[in-house]
Amino acid sequence: MTKFKVGIVGATGYTGSELIRLLSQHPDITIDFVTSETHAGKHISDIHPHLMDAVDIKLKSIQKISDYKPDLVFLALPHGVSMNFIKDHGIDRFITIDLSGDFRFSNQSVYEKWYKKDHVAPKYLDEAVFGLPELFRDKIRNARLIANPGCYPTSAILALAPLLKHGIVHPSSIVIDSKSGVTGAGAKPKQGTHFPDVFGNFTAYSLATHRHTPEIEETLRQYTGYSTEVLFTPHLLPIDRGILTTTYSTPKKSVSSDVIEDLFHSIYEKENFVRVFDHPPSVKNVRGSNYCDIHAVYDERTNKIITISTIDNLMKGAAGQAVQNMNIVFGLIESTGLRQIPLNP
Amino acid sequence: MTKFKVGIVGATGYTGSELIRLLSQHPDITIDFVTSETHAGKHISDIHPHLMDAVDIKLKSIQKISDYKPDLVFLALPHGVSMNFIKDHGIDRFITIDLSGDFRFSNQSVYEKWYKKDHVAPKYLDEAVFGLPELFRDKIRNARLIANPGCYPTSAILALAPLLKHGIVHPSSIVIDSKSGVTGAGAKPKQGTHFPDVFGNFTAYSLATHRHTPEIEETLRQYTGYSTEVLFTPHLLPIDRGILTTTYSTPKKSVSSDVIEDLFHSIYEKENFVRVFDHPPSVKNVRGSNYCDIHAVYDERTNKIITISTIDNLMKGAAGQAVQNMNIVFGLIESTGLRQIPLNP
Amino acid sequence: MTKFKVGIVGATGYTGSELIRLLSQHPDITIDFVTSETHAGKHISDIHPHLMDAVDIKLKSIQKISDYKPDLVFLALPHGVSMNFIKDHGIDRFITIDLSGDFRFSNQSVYEKWYKKDHVAPKYLDEAVFGLPELFRDKIRNARLIANPGCYPTSAILALAPLLKHGIVHPSSIVIDSKSGVTGAGAKPKQGTHFPDVFGNFTAYSLATHRHTPEIEETLRQYTGYSTEVLFTPHLLPIDRGILTTTYSTPKKSVSSDVIEDLFHSIYEKENFVRVFDHPPSVKNVRGSNYCDIHAVYDERTNKIITISTIDNLMKGAAGQAVQNMNIVFGLIESTGLRQIPLNP
Amino acid sequence: MTKFKVGIVGATGYTGSELIRLLSQHPDITIDFVTSETHAGKHISDIHPHLMDAVDIKLKSIQKISDYKPDLVFLALPHGVSMNFIKDHGIDRFITIDLSGDFRFSNQSVYEKWYKKDHVAPKYLDEAVFGLPELFRDKIRNARLIANPGCYPTSAILALAPLLKHGIVHPSSIVIDSKSGVTGAGAKPKQGTHFPDVFGNFTAYSLATHRHTPEIEETLRQYTGYSTEVLFTPHLLPIDRGILTTTYSTPKKSVSSDVIEDLFHSIYEKENFVRVFDHPPSVKNVRGSNYCDIHAVYDERTNKIITISTIDNLMKGAAGQAVQNMNIVFGLIESTGLRQIPLNP
Repeated sequence: MTKFKVGIVGATGYTGSELIRLLSQHPDITIDFVTSETHAGKHISDIHPHLMDAVDIKLKSIQKISDYKPDLVFLALPHGVSMNFIKDHGIDRFITIDLSGDFRFSNQSVYEKWYKKDHVAPKYLDEAVFGLPELFRDKIRNARLIANPGCYPTSAILALAPLLKHGIVHPSSIVIDSKSGVTGAGAKPKQGTHFPDVFGNFTAYSLATHRHTPEIEETLRQYTGYSTEVLFTPHLLPIDRGILTTTYSTPKKSVSSDVIEDLFHSIYEKENFVRVFDHPPSVKNVRGSNYCDIHAVYDERTNKIITISTIDNLMKGAAGQAVQNMNIVFGLIESTGLRQIPLNP
Repeated sequence: MTKFKVGIVGATGYTGSELIRLLSQHPDITIDFVTSETHAGKHISDIHPHLMDAVDIKLKSIQKISDYKPDLVFLALPHGVSMNFIKDHGIDRFITIDLSGDFRFSNQSVYEKWYKKDHVAPKYLDEAVFGLPELFRDKIRNARLIANPGCYPTSAILALAPLLKHGIVHPSSIVIDSKSGVTGAGAKPKQGTHFPDVFGNFTAYSLATHRHTPEIEETLRQYTGYSTEVLFTPHLLPIDRGILTTTYSTPKKSVSSDVIEDLFHSIYEKENFVRVFDHPPSVKNVRGSNYCDIHAVYDERTNKIITISTIDNLMKGAAGQAVQNMNIVFGLIESTGLRQIPLNP
Repeated sequence: MTKFKVGIVGATGYTGSELIRLLSQHPDITIDFVTSETHAGKHISDIHPHLMDAVDIKLKSIQKISDYKPDLVFLALPHGVSMNFIKDHGIDRFITIDLSGDFRFSNQSVYEKWYKKDHVAPKYLDEAVFGLPELFRDKIRNARLIANPGCYPTSAILALAPLLKHGIVHPSSIVIDSKSGVTGAGAKPKQGTHFPDVFGNFTAYSLATHRHTPEIEETLRQYTGYSTEVLFTPHLLPIDRGILTTTYSTPKKSVSSDVIEDLFHSIYEKENFVRVFDHPPSVKNVRGSNYCDIHAVYDERTNKIITISTIDNLMKGAAGQAVQNMNIVFGLIESTGLRQIPLNP
Repeated sequence: MTKFKVGIVGATGYTGSELIRLLSQHPDITIDFVTSETHAGKHISDIHPHLMDAVDIKLKSIQKISDYKPDLVFLALPHGVSMNFIKDHGIDRFITIDLSGDFRFSNQSVYEKWYKKDHVAPKYLDEAVFGLPELFRDKIRNARLIANPGCYPTSAILALAPLLKHGIVHPSSIVIDSKSGVTGAGAKPKQGTHFPDVFGNFTAYSLATHRHTPEIEETLRQYTGYSTEVLFTPHLLPIDRGILTTTYSTPKKSVSSDVIEDLFHSIYEKENFVRVFDHPPSVKNVRGSNYCDIHAVYDERTNKIITISTIDNLMKGAAGQAVQNMNIVFGLIESTGLRQIPLNP
């Protein structure tokens, strides 16, 4: 079989290096190019020493990508930068999977309100498919532009979608209490991610104002056909990788823990990357893998459903999910190149 | 001034060693005795090397305490063991501050249901005062038996009490999402607290079944005069010390973040150990100190009030609060010996 | 090609679960059986939840292994237990790779002195080949019993062997200062590996008495043909995986950093799993992989050679190296199934 | 007694905030002023929230210090900045304790070689006393300018000084292998101290080139009267606070572990802040305190003496030692305000 050719735009960040880790071992693709403006000309292991010997790639400037004819390009760029790339390159020459938040909303004004900037390529918003395979696999198959989901939303939506789709819970007063490792904040040093500030510490941030809120709500609306309202609170965990999300919702009718567990099993039984647990999962059990582990219980005393879900934010929350989307759009077996077993301990 | 004499029963655990750290530098008391059955005869620094030179104490067997006439005894014993001590020693010879859960409920059946064991000294349940000074200072002053609060309840109750006492929020559907460092699980090695199991990890446990649930509900009922129902979810943080608790509740009437912040300021302004923040607190800002830091906001979009509160679970969540109770019952200035500044970074 | 059949004796420990992670994805072998006495009958994911869905294995009692005809068996057993297995099963029915220390010495008295126990199967000591492929590949190829090296020795020997083999440094007064993550101490909870005891902590242990000392000396003697004397000091790092070893030795004649770096490059250039760095390596750059990264410099001022080497103690220090040995003894390409790229960050 | 007035120049760094933690509770001094150029006008808790309520200080610009008449000023400034302050202010108006490296060498050329910059106030180098009380207490008593030692040197010198002073070991071929927590690298975010880069990681740096090397050698020469040559290798520990230093040296004559332990006991028995251990110390046993814990053993097999010493780098390695020096120069009891018991766990 001829291998598919893919490019990666943006090599210095964590999603970039994680994409390289995955794609360099993917049997059905070749990496056509990897770009970095600050490090063009260097070898990838000059900036990511862990890749030495394992990956043989020289970084290019983005100026050079017209020399290539990739089938697909991953944009591992910051929010606000991806849309400029799409504006310049369009979606005809190659399929694009954008790992930023720039094309996750069909509604331009929602983007502009929560990201506090004008959208420069709004005409592509309608084209973009939200790349959560478990919910939108059919649309992804034919997409030219895939908006890869945010890390928090992936963990929350996979836990809530079954409950909402099947009318189990009220679509309001849903509480999402999420906890993320520090790689979610990116590779660039900041005061809030300085080691002594995070070590032995734990905190909440962006109370009621985090922009993953509308991403969760919009996606659930698109999936269920009706509006859902969530209160989302992110917290910073003193670990490198991993998200654990706890949700609280209220049943509309009589349920039991067994009924709910059965529902999750039946919905996700054919999925490669969702594992339904009979006990609360922990983030280390998905480290380095593309799994999302979920546990759900009903508390009769307070009449609430609790879900706990975990992902590796750089895998199912970013690069792993992007490769899963690539496999779908290329018509490959969805788990190709994504069978990494979690690294535990 | 003659110094008060106090004894500590149980030296090997974390609350025991933390009590020694605090009491050995307290200006108004002397440590009469410290007991340990497994280490009787040894020097305290043989089991807690960090105390070497700093503290000069030889451990006694509990059999020897009849030789002493302490004014007050701290019980740093496991749940289920303290009540035997009280059964044997009563409350007449000395005041007792019990750091276990054995006397935190006035209702024997609630204890027996959630702790799954018979209570052997039920006649003292009515005598016991719940030792949360900010709520029950007047009762503590005259108590003979003080039930020192659990760590999670302290963080949750101090955040919710103002909202409930002043009728701001509905006393039902309250969600308490708590995250605790590992010292909360005690000094004894277990699989779940083995370093490689916890490092880089994060998990939830005891969903809807943790026994701090009724402690929170009972205490709030006692304080407000009416019933409150909470759903409490504990999580295990990969740090040694610290609890952060996030609560979600629904206002009964129109409020604003400013109104709520003002309420917290007015209620806690005279308290030595509660600090009201205008931003989310982090656990490292209370490390090693007796502070509880609280932040509260109102989210108009979802009509919810969010609180974030932090404590050092071994201090305000255990030994620090116990010393605070001791100061009150001895008529000392409440902050005596408790002015440790948080250790950050 | 017919696949080789292998068995794993001992599934509960870290080396056992890491072997399963590697072997379940190895293209040329099938896992015949995995044993556990305490968990026989359970599914592997009941004790290692991270393997759920990814690995489908039921645990057997060791009593059952006569039902199987494996080509090779891995012993993931504690020191002192492996030798009983060999005593009972011999080395004729299948090749054995022992991950314990029981067969790492040709000299029985050295074993008995440093491990403080009698050897029950001394007649196999001569048969055993020390499984460090970079030094003893030819012997490993024909071995029936392979003693997989200790984690500390692997990191130290790969750094020192070139210097000693080529007569660069004096074979005495060599200092080896090693630092290891906690998984090196095993999966069983102990006080010294209790999370609050290790978190934020760092300590040295077994000063001048650690049994990896003779393993390093014996192996270097066997490789070079003359005696070497080392002073080995292990330290406990507050991380899960990884060893970093710093060595100090004295040149016998005039050298330079360039000469030494060239020497390491020439010796290791054809090796799959040794990477020679021009700067000090860090343990996270080998996490989850079978690499050993090495850097060596000469300090003219003090006339010392310093080497820094890193491995993942569960991979190149245990399970990864065992699979590498298996590949050699089976005549497979040595890197088969071992191309995991380090997980960083 | 009238309290002494002290000023702190530089409030934003870790040594600044730690000085404030200590001095705000010191019974014999008042804090006259604390300066910060970037935060002048703000309250100290605006930049160090853990100090809220506990410390009531408004930050001043350094321009304002002519308004004050302090008895002593602490310089918590970066290397290369302190010397400008001394150049401008001299040493007549107040005693100065400089926590940077600018005045730790009597020899200007040594400073300029290792710090790679010109010294702007060389005439004060002779005036400066190296502020390691256990070695130079008498000189400190009358000093006008005290060069507070570096963190690594404090841990190494206290371990080696007894052995060298008493002629026990050869003053050459001494290896110092040190491991430090991240606060030693300062409060300013850098790539090398970004949380995901340090978490789960461990590395060596500045091999044979760290500028604490000459500080250790010069100080030991000054103390013993003859030259010592050391090879110093620093490593970065993934913790916030703490240094552990392992040294290796060669006896000149027959010794034993007992003889060495006795020597350390006799030398340090009257010291407040040095604890001689009969087992290897760990960094958490000194966390938040001014202790230096030391253990020394002799290995007959290799004829080496090993020492392990630990300090909290921000306390005995910086702010704590600075306050100890202040107490000496003010004629106070040396341990005043420094009796913090280590925070463990």
